[in-house]
Amino acid sequence: MNIIMQPIGYIKSEFKEKKELPRQSILNTDKKAIIEILPEYVEGIEGIVENDYGIILFNFHKSTKSPLRIIPHGRDHMTGVFSTRSPNRPNGIGMSIVKFTKVDGNKLEFEGVDMLDGTPVLDIKPYSSKLNPK
Amino acid sequence: MNIIMQPIGYIKSEFKEKKELPRQSILNTDKKAIIEILPEYVEGIEGIVENDYGIILFNFHKSTKSPLRIIPHGRDHMTGVFSTRSPNRPNGIGMSIVKFTKVDGNKLEFEGVDMLDGTPVLDIKPYSSKLNPK
Repeated sequence: MNIIMQPIGYIKSEFKEKKELPRQSILNTDKKAIIEILPEYVEGIEGIVENDYGIILFNFHKSTKSPLRIIPHGRDHMTGVFSTRSPNRPNGIGMSIVKFTKVDGNKLEFEGVDMLDGTPVLDIKPYSSKLNPK
Repeated sequence: MNIIMQPIGYIKSEFKEKKELPRQSILNTDKKAIIEILPEYVEGIEGIVENDYGIILFNFHKSTKSPLRIIPHGRDHMTGVFSTRSPNRPNGIGMSIVKFTKVDGNKLEFEGVDMLDGTPVLDIKPYSSKLNPK
């Protein structure tokens, strides 16, 4: 069964290669980037900067779909990929919590970038601390 | 540009219709459900119950891709869909924070279900409170 998605926009960031990327978006709040929303989806970001934080779901477009078991960074034994944030995973969906700072037409600026320039954006969701486990 | 995904498994839950669903997964911790991981992805869940919590990304397979502006539940004015958790959104990706309770072969049991029975699962990620905004 294929599930077909289409980007709602693309990331414009200063990171052109994987080795330049920070490890966790929320620890990288001094860097800003932009999502250029495609014209047909611009209505969907109305009101978005009223939320301080949001969640960007994106496609790891430069990664592979395997392996299923890896040794995560900083650990010493193999574990399943679904216990890790590895970009190499079956459906290649990345998730970052970011802080929205400005919107100008179809350009949505945010802090907390850990995506490569040109990354396809799949979805944007509100962040709510009420949904976090206690 | 099409991005093609394939389910890594399917939700088995007691919710057969949308009207039965709770509004927020984490507020529904007395109900349990199972992800039946497809055989080819079972290696990917190794070690997963060592994490208390996880994030399930799934496909809203019974929803539409529009409209781009809605009046969210409990509010009185229109806003863009990307500021809401509406299941009707361009790429139909749902996200729930859940608590893993047991794994038995390809069956991963969790608390916090807000998905319909038969929902395709796209990805599972670790939850880390360290990534939450301060």
